[in-house]
Amino acid sequence: MIKKWRRTNKELVYKAHIMRHCQVHSHSTTTDKKGIFDVIECLDWVNVLSLTHSDEVILVRQYRQGIDAVTLELPGGAVNHGEDPLIGAKRELEEETGGVAREWLKLGHSDVNPAFMENRCHYFLARGVELTKNQSLDPQEEIEIVTVPLKEIPGMFQRGEITHSLTHAAFCFFWAATLS
Amino acid sequence: MIKKWRRTNKELVYKAHIMRHCQVHSHSTTTDKKGIFDVIECLDWVNVLSLTHSDEVILVRQYRQGIDAVTLELPGGAVNHGEDPLIGAKRELEEETGGVAREWLKLGHSDVNPAFMENRCHYFLARGVELTKNQSLDPQEEIEIVTVPLKEIPGMFQRGEITHSLTHAAFCFFWAATLS
Repeated sequence: MIKKWRRTNKELVYKAHIMRHCQVHSHSTTTDKKGIFDVIECLDWVNVLSLTHSDEVILVRQYRQGIDAVTLELPGGAVNHGEDPLIGAKRELEEETGGVAREWLKLGHSDVNPAFMENRCHYFLARGVELTKNQSLDPQEEIEIVTVPLKEIPGMFQRGEITHSLTHAAFCFFWAATLS
Repeated sequence: MIKKWRRTNKELVYKAHIMRHCQVHSHSTTTDKKGIFDVIECLDWVNVLSLTHSDEVILVRQYRQGIDAVTLELPGGAVNHGEDPLIGAKRELEEETGGVAREWLKLGHSDVNPAFMENRCHYFLARGVELTKNQSLDPQEEIEIVTVPLKEIPGMFQRGEITHSLTHAAFCFFWAATLS
């Protein structure tokens, strides 16, 4: 039976803009295995699967620094320290798209990458969304709003037109709800 | 229309065990927006959704340093430089579970985190898997094999019993194939 390891030390080794890179010393409590591991501290995130009255999904197109390319993905962003993720989700949807929803439902959450990241991503379903407000973007954001019929999403995933792992995870929860 | 930004500099700022932490200077080509951004270089990964002859999903239970907890997730790991992801997927399934499959299908891929990570995760479906070999674990791995009926997976996601974002993404592709 696999047991939790014991951490004996955690040291900050590099402080980046949006994350803190640490080294953790830990050892198994049942075998002699041990090591020094990379662990990244980061704020939690939210992703919003938002549907209009006519079942169109609201997506955002933006340039992403990591892959040096333009992506199409669900609206989302970071949750402030101590903030209710639902509040963060409402703010991100409104800031990135100007959208306001009639109804909010929690879909679930992921550990973003349990191997080396501490944070979670929370997924929400926003129904009856109307794009009634203006975008309110951060100084480094350029975001275009794109709406796509819900039934086209599976094909867009398969053709590699939507590639963000956390957008995929949000739809996993959306479809899981219809299968369970 | 959102355009790709222009990178003017990329500098290694911290070399960790499994990744390289860089700072990228880039600027928009259509507005005066610009900045310095965190970008992490990392090997590509694979995740394997493997099914036995009786439609049981093969999962691995292991301690994960990032969240300091034991998780249940799909088998997977890193793809070597220049390696065909399918070869990496076969190796990871065999090393972590001793499993060998009758049939392999590509499900899709994600950009792991387009905002600050360069790498992808490739998803494969392995059918007719039999656990005929011994595990062959890395020095720092302790892995227990768990099989779960496929029909129980949606509920396990919803109850937070399987939390890895890339396991969620793999099932997104699996279910997308039935919806498109």
